[in-house]
Amino acid sequence: MSKKIHPLDIKKGMTAADLIREYGKGAFGSGTIAEAAGLYTEMLTGGCTVFLGLAGALVPAGLGKMVADLIRDGMVHVVVSTGANVTHDLIEAFGGSHFKGIVENDSQLREKGLDRIYDAYIEDESFVLFENKIKEVFHTVEGDVSVSDLMREIGRHLESPYSFIRQAFLEKVPVFVPAFTDSILGLHTFLYAQEHSLTVDHVRDIGKMVELTSAGHKAGAIFLGGGVPKNFIFQAMLLSPRTFEYALQITTDRPEYGGLSGATLEEAISWGKVSKNSRLCTCYCDATIAFPLIVAGVRDNLQK
Amino acid sequence: MSKKIHPLDIKKGMTAADLIREYGKGAFGSGTIAEAAGLYTEMLTGGCTVFLGLAGALVPAGLGKMVADLIRDGMVHVVVSTGANVTHDLIEAFGGSHFKGIVENDSQLREKGLDRIYDAYIEDESFVLFENKIKEVFHTVEGDVSVSDLMREIGRHLESPYSFIRQAFLEKVPVFVPAFTDSILGLHTFLYAQEHSLTVDHVRDIGKMVELTSAGHKAGAIFLGGGVPKNFIFQAMLLSPRTFEYALQITTDRPEYGGLSGATLEEAISWGKVSKNSRLCTCYCDATIAFPLIVAGVRDNLQK
Amino acid sequence: MSKKIHPLDIKKGMTAADLIREYGKGAFGSGTIAEAAGLYTEMLTGGCTVFLGLAGALVPAGLGKMVADLIRDGMVHVVVSTGANVTHDLIEAFGGSHFKGIVENDSQLREKGLDRIYDAYIEDESFVLFENKIKEVFHTVEGDVSVSDLMREIGRHLESPYSFIRQAFLEKVPVFVPAFTDSILGLHTFLYAQEHSLTVDHVRDIGKMVELTSAGHKAGAIFLGGGVPKNFIFQAMLLSPRTFEYALQITTDRPEYGGLSGATLEEAISWGKVSKNSRLCTCYCDATIAFPLIVAGVRDNLQK
Amino acid sequence: MSKKIHPLDIKKGMTAADLIREYGKGAFGSGTIAEAAGLYTEMLTGGCTVFLGLAGALVPAGLGKMVADLIRDGMVHVVVSTGANVTHDLIEAFGGSHFKGIVENDSQLREKGLDRIYDAYIEDESFVLFENKIKEVFHTVEGDVSVSDLMREIGRHLESPYSFIRQAFLEKVPVFVPAFTDSILGLHTFLYAQEHSLTVDHVRDIGKMVELTSAGHKAGAIFLGGGVPKNFIFQAMLLSPRTFEYALQITTDRPEYGGLSGATLEEAISWGKVSKNSRLCTCYCDATIAFPLIVAGVRDNLQK
Repeated sequence: MSKKIHPLDIKKGMTAADLIREYGKGAFGSGTIAEAAGLYTEMLTGGCTVFLGLAGALVPAGLGKMVADLIRDGMVHVVVSTGANVTHDLIEAFGGSHFKGIVENDSQLREKGLDRIYDAYIEDESFVLFENKIKEVFHTVEGDVSVSDLMREIGRHLESPYSFIRQAFLEKVPVFVPAFTDSILGLHTFLYAQEHSLTVDHVRDIGKMVELTSAGHKAGAIFLGGGVPKNFIFQAMLLSPRTFEYALQITTDRPEYGGLSGATLEEAISWGKVSKNSRLCTCYCDATIAFPLIVAGVRDNLQK
Repeated sequence: MSKKIHPLDIKKGMTAADLIREYGKGAFGSGTIAEAAGLYTEMLTGGCTVFLGLAGALVPAGLGKMVADLIRDGMVHVVVSTGANVTHDLIEAFGGSHFKGIVENDSQLREKGLDRIYDAYIEDESFVLFENKIKEVFHTVEGDVSVSDLMREIGRHLESPYSFIRQAFLEKVPVFVPAFTDSILGLHTFLYAQEHSLTVDHVRDIGKMVELTSAGHKAGAIFLGGGVPKNFIFQAMLLSPRTFEYALQITTDRPEYGGLSGATLEEAISWGKVSKNSRLCTCYCDATIAFPLIVAGVRDNLQK
Repeated sequence: MSKKIHPLDIKKGMTAADLIREYGKGAFGSGTIAEAAGLYTEMLTGGCTVFLGLAGALVPAGLGKMVADLIRDGMVHVVVSTGANVTHDLIEAFGGSHFKGIVENDSQLREKGLDRIYDAYIEDESFVLFENKIKEVFHTVEGDVSVSDLMREIGRHLESPYSFIRQAFLEKVPVFVPAFTDSILGLHTFLYAQEHSLTVDHVRDIGKMVELTSAGHKAGAIFLGGGVPKNFIFQAMLLSPRTFEYALQITTDRPEYGGLSGATLEEAISWGKVSKNSRLCTCYCDATIAFPLIVAGVRDNLQK
Repeated sequence: MSKKIHPLDIKKGMTAADLIREYGKGAFGSGTIAEAAGLYTEMLTGGCTVFLGLAGALVPAGLGKMVADLIRDGMVHVVVSTGANVTHDLIEAFGGSHFKGIVENDSQLREKGLDRIYDAYIEDESFVLFENKIKEVFHTVEGDVSVSDLMREIGRHLESPYSFIRQAFLEKVPVFVPAFTDSILGLHTFLYAQEHSLTVDHVRDIGKMVELTSAGHKAGAIFLGGGVPKNFIFQAMLLSPRTFEYALQITTDRPEYGGLSGATLEEAISWGKVSKNSRLCTCYCDATIAFPLIVAGVRDNLQK
């Protein structure tokens, strides 16, 4: 297993694959980037079902299209997201935008009707647009649906090539949102349901997840951040005869505070969520930095 | 506003209140501990409705009773929790336990049927116990309930003085679990619902939260960790005519990665979730270290 | 080794020792606080030579007197500090002060001649005061001295009971400052040496450190933050026939980035800096929060 | 200043420059990578003197050659390093190596004579090699030298194209090591000086740094990690009539704990170390991940 560390050789004109080859020579975070790209490549060449967990404001940061493209190209097969990422994906699909370049303080932003997400922001009007558009979609759904059914029906109404919700609809990739009510999409579902017959069944999706994790293929998990998506993906294995054989997480949380977001992937072995012989890689990094680089490298590897 | 920093004087025989007085002289984290204790004290003497968000494995770490006691003594009025904290609270209330003192690796733990949570663990058998007991409770509920209704009904069946779910029932403190399906409690609800008529309505609780945040009293929020509880508490203000006037968070996340867990409380001003003149305090610390100390100080302040 | 986790019982009127007893029941950071207090108590009752490493702006934060008192009471026997902590200790001893309560931005602070250290600040004038006073001390020293000699000579001229440099002089506790030139004290030494015969020998202190670590007593290390003090304390063991038998670090750094500040104490076993059977404890926490609490608990334990 | 966030478009076949262009569309860490590459490019096209601070075990991780190449290509003009990075650079230049792929625990590593640095390690024998070789170099130096003189003399004896110490010698780039005694190189200097006339003057380098920061060119600083190198670079401006006009830091520390390593670059404005109109960028990331990517992008920009 022991391997000499060769110095990274960084030159002009390198492709992502070249870069990652150099990262692979090094230790610490550098080495894990290369390991992560290798692991993801192996998941895909080995025919894994890839479960992707999305936590943190990835869509406002600009990563939504990258997820959509992974779905389009058969590189992600199941998505579990926070409600916020879905909400912001839909806002962009409905014509709204996110911005950066903040010079005001938070009180000034409030006066201007701008809502801050660290160094990004969104206008109040985008939420008004969202409200109007999502109501139209709700009209076409109604009845009693699971969260993932609702995601599919919403996706059917979208046209933006950047939306991962639309792309998931097109590719029949299920999107789960276990904390659906914890989002602005959830708030509008509540408001709509006050006056219309729309019931969103949360529990039903557990069965669907268990089915997916129990299917014949090897299972691999990729977690961008932790949160509910990480736990929801992992816990499905508690009701499944199988376990994950690959897991890759990109997180900035740490194990010592005891939360699941920062837990090592090895911990999941003790729970029987991943197998003892699984291939695991944790990259301690801002996902908006690490994941695009890894994806570019994997795309080079697969010529996709 | 400017204030001289006096050196902390740490001696034998100090009470929590003495200690916090000394912390208050200092800068960095030290000063925020005192500020946090002052803020919480002020929330209570000022008649605030206190919303407590519980994220991270606080109950396995041993903090469940502390939450129960805060509820008992009228120091917390609304709880929003992860499903995991509820699950582990119930396991202990049903007679199960958490342990520490791990010497095995994760594969060895799996063979012994032990499930690790950083430096704590729980036996597989505790989950079997949980399954049997929770089914009995489900029998008495059935029908169509909101998550907070279900929490109340579960609390009615408990006897442990350490359980915050039981104490919340006794004190009529609502407990919300927005990502309810993302937990072992959620899994068993799913399994039970396959064969019995139990429907858990997630959306209904949004209305209840909005009601609580719209009531006449001043509102204050305390977040242990971030996650879904933080967002769910804050987002209720988007449908409310009011805003939070106090907010205190104890977190180890950081703002720069863009996730809500690490977001500054000031960011919530831009969204209109907290008022411009609100009193805000963020303590960057493991909640299992900071919160017991703060609570001890507040109890000294209030002689409670 | 396995131990049941009992819920923490937090009540009014608790002393630091009571609190720490409760922390000891819990997991995660909570448990490490109790472990740390136990370890430090054991170092002292077992007759250890205690090496204290001081990194981070602990003196500006108000922790200088606490260190001075530990020296006075025989609870610390060797100090290794950053140059900044020494500089700020001397500034206070010379009559300067640190402040908190900043409302200006950094450009405004510059215009007012205020120098910020996170939420604390110091006036430019304090550095003028420092310059004048330290020159007077330099006049009495001159010649060729080691850094620790210089620290002792400076301590001889101080009167403040809050200064750890003075207290170290009184108790004959050596103070090492390996990165002495990396501080405002260093800058003034340079300026003074331009016109006077003052030579500060850095290398000589290595011999003194090796002597101290090679002495007959058991050795224990306490690190507040990492940085140069941590490495300087540990590396002395590479030239010593002994190893540390106790080590306690309070840090917010993490191992995965590869720096020594965040390295686990276990890593030092591989280097032969701590013994295989050493007692080690890492508390991942802001030292301005964790250390005063631990010290209060140890003082209660020892009735000191 | 306000700018729409466009989704990142990650495809196969991208070069580093392409990738960074996409990062630049995004928010959070993603945006800062592009900003950092832009800032560094601008420093170089604008004729800045670039000061590089090296903290953390960058050489063991494999980044030494990258630093050497930046020196060779006129992209770094002054280096301030920890003693450890110098020690490990020399070990590699003398024929030693670092390895990765650890399967043993720390006690087992000790028995095998292997010294761990997170997921990398080095053999005890490499330190024996180092001892022998460095003594030979010391023989040729002797007398009274500043630390940076000593670095130059050591560089003169090296042949490895991967060594940044050698490359700095070739390009007349001064290398400062303010905490020189805090390293294995320092230990051997001490041992050698016991029997030979070698005196290393630490204070003298302050004058040289002040000269460099006072020279006619604009000054820019790049910090990989914080520690002593960051402070030493910044503090030179306290004795200089100038200030830094560019500063870029890649760090994983955070401001709230008050240490300089995690301090914002804006804080340095209050001290007069950087100018009010300076261009500043902080990238919160493992430097072994962020810096190679940034360098590759800058090389593409400059066709170097």
